[in-house]
Amino acid sequence: MSHFTILKTAGHARLAQLQLSHGLVETPVFMPVGTYGVVKTQTPDELQKLGTQILLGNTYHLYLRPGLELLEHFGGLHSFMNWSGPLLTDSGGFQVFSLGALRRITDEGVKFKSPLNGDEIFLSPEISAKIQQVIGSDIAMVLDECVSLPSDDRTVEQAVKRSAAWARRFFDVPRKSGQKIYAILQGGTSLAFRKQSLELTLPLPMDGLAIGGLSVGEPHKEMVHILEGLAPLLPKHLPHYLMGVGTPRDILEAVRCGIDQFDCVLPTRNARNGGFFTPNGLLNIRNSEYKLDKRPIDENCLCDCCRHYSRAYLRHLFQVKEILGCRLATTHNLYYYHHFLKEIRDSLRSDRFEAFYQAHIGQLTQAYPDKFERSEMEVTKE
Amino acid sequence: MSHFTILKTAGHARLAQLQLSHGLVETPVFMPVGTYGVVKTQTPDELQKLGTQILLGNTYHLYLRPGLELLEHFGGLHSFMNWSGPLLTDSGGFQVFSLGALRRITDEGVKFKSPLNGDEIFLSPEISAKIQQVIGSDIAMVLDECVSLPSDDRTVEQAVKRSAAWARRFFDVPRKSGQKIYAILQGGTSLAFRKQSLELTLPLPMDGLAIGGLSVGEPHKEMVHILEGLAPLLPKHLPHYLMGVGTPRDILEAVRCGIDQFDCVLPTRNARNGGFFTPNGLLNIRNSEYKLDKRPIDENCLCDCCRHYSRAYLRHLFQVKEILGCRLATTHNLYYYHHFLKEIRDSLRSDRFEAFYQAHIGQLTQAYPDKFERSEMEVTKE
Repeated sequence: MSHFTILKTAGHARLAQLQLSHGLVETPVFMPVGTYGVVKTQTPDELQKLGTQILLGNTYHLYLRPGLELLEHFGGLHSFMNWSGPLLTDSGGFQVFSLGALRRITDEGVKFKSPLNGDEIFLSPEISAKIQQVIGSDIAMVLDECVSLPSDDRTVEQAVKRSAAWARRFFDVPRKSGQKIYAILQGGTSLAFRKQSLELTLPLPMDGLAIGGLSVGEPHKEMVHILEGLAPLLPKHLPHYLMGVGTPRDILEAVRCGIDQFDCVLPTRNARNGGFFTPNGLLNIRNSEYKLDKRPIDENCLCDCCRHYSRAYLRHLFQVKEILGCRLATTHNLYYYHHFLKEIRDSLRSDRFEAFYQAHIGQLTQAYPDKFERSEMEVTKE
Repeated sequence: MSHFTILKTAGHARLAQLQLSHGLVETPVFMPVGTYGVVKTQTPDELQKLGTQILLGNTYHLYLRPGLELLEHFGGLHSFMNWSGPLLTDSGGFQVFSLGALRRITDEGVKFKSPLNGDEIFLSPEISAKIQQVIGSDIAMVLDECVSLPSDDRTVEQAVKRSAAWARRFFDVPRKSGQKIYAILQGGTSLAFRKQSLELTLPLPMDGLAIGGLSVGEPHKEMVHILEGLAPLLPKHLPHYLMGVGTPRDILEAVRCGIDQFDCVLPTRNARNGGFFTPNGLLNIRNSEYKLDKRPIDENCLCDCCRHYSRAYLRHLFQVKEILGCRLATTHNLYYYHHFLKEIRDSLRSDRFEAFYQAHIGQLTQAYPDKFERSEMEVTKE
């Protein structure tokens, strides 16, 4: 039996079950980002109560700290961080490429200097596979080469080819029992390069297929163009994962194009800056208009933050720099994302997805315009 | 019927019930410090589960932020912060005196510059009473004058007399219904001045009596000397509150001298620096010896931190500056304090207090030596 069972479809959109070593995940699903073996401010127990089915860990960060010795000593990240559910790890590639001048890429792999102590570190497909085996994730991602957008055609095509070559080497590493491996498409905002990437990738023995290199600065329209172009071409029997995306609007559009898995720092990162997600857009609690506001962030939200605290109190917490403010904002934002995905799944289950899409896409487009993604991403960059 | 009912005694030590507007408190009790209407990193719900019976709020901080307008708008701090249990507020005096050169004291009150915007602010007994009424605390403290130690006799005696005069004025302000008011003894480490302070204070219509101006740098021995000297003289029918104290050792000694209430920033402040309270002293989790340590902080502790997380993981959280580290340390430290006070109460209830004292005071004296208090207080000063 396959690990991925489709329960319902609506056009390209699917409701499905993904069976992983540490449990069953119902898709479409949002995966909170737990960079260093922790989703900022939250305990694993709380994450589960918020509706988290699967976490994302960052291979690059975990490789630097706590490092492999400690992860091996604990038999993997699950036991170290006390998370018993499914876990996906990225390959480390995206973070290394973000280092810019501090790294050097060859066909063999990537050399970079540790930001902790300046040591030279080397990451290759084989090494990334090994690290993700030690972490013990349910889903490992192949090492790929990301390019920033816009880039010239030569750069994009080189990344497509190198990513495919690296993916082949990644799959040649003997697997850890039970670990699923996803391949990654590159190709920027060119549908031609995306199709080339797909062609090179389809022969691989992958358990899922990811779309990488989007949500890196391109307009929303271009992202949707790529997703719509790829939708009929993606292998239907595999889960589709759109990496690093996105706003609620992005997610709704992407589900309609057949995407099943999402991860994004937006809910956790904005939380730390006083940004609360609502159906009407991001509410910045630092705004003075909330000073005396006794209402919760969202009167229809059932999260612990909205059930117990006023906007005025939350604003006060951010004014006096109390950690509880970030905590409650993270609680609300993750609840918002998980609840939104649950609504999408429910609409698929009851054959109302297209109606759900039509009922929400207008408001979400206003609430989360193109500008939102870029400016917020930059303002809140760590 | 009195608001304070003694259930058991053992020498000067007492097990008692304190009836307040927002509930019953069993003493001896530790009151966590919630400076800005929040005990750092914790929700009110979590505090209750940790065993918190009564919180302390800082009048000085709350007066500056969120300020009286907001507190009045919400009908007090309870509703603003979502805490439904008993609440004690200090008078604001201690913080104002800590401002040093930035404040000027006269018989009328204290003038100081707001650290937020430089505005000149005036605090008098009448104003402190008014602020605490707006906050709506169950217990309000009179405005007193603290002196740093050591100080010359003239300074100490002046503070004793001014504090008594201010206390009289404080009690002349019409009361908020149900609010209890505690008077405060001053007098430094001189038993003679302490007795003078007591004599001037006893005629006041107080609901409890606090000992102020200790734990401000004097050796542990001198603090105990004062407590032992005052123990037979304190009015037995009233609760006794030792302000700003202290280590587990201080608390055990003070209970033996008839103290019923304590507050201290040590558990919350040390938590933020990776200091975990244990029966063997403060465990600094940043220490490299814990790098691979799979044990919990304290194998006998039943708190959420010790039940779920290893020293190695907690150390990692502090290494990567993850807020969850401070959260879990705060959880553990408050649990430790509340559990320690519960053990003291249980020993009083079952007539074993003296045996409990003898069984623990040796180890606690080693675990929390004089040096601990000062160096930790300074290192971790905010």
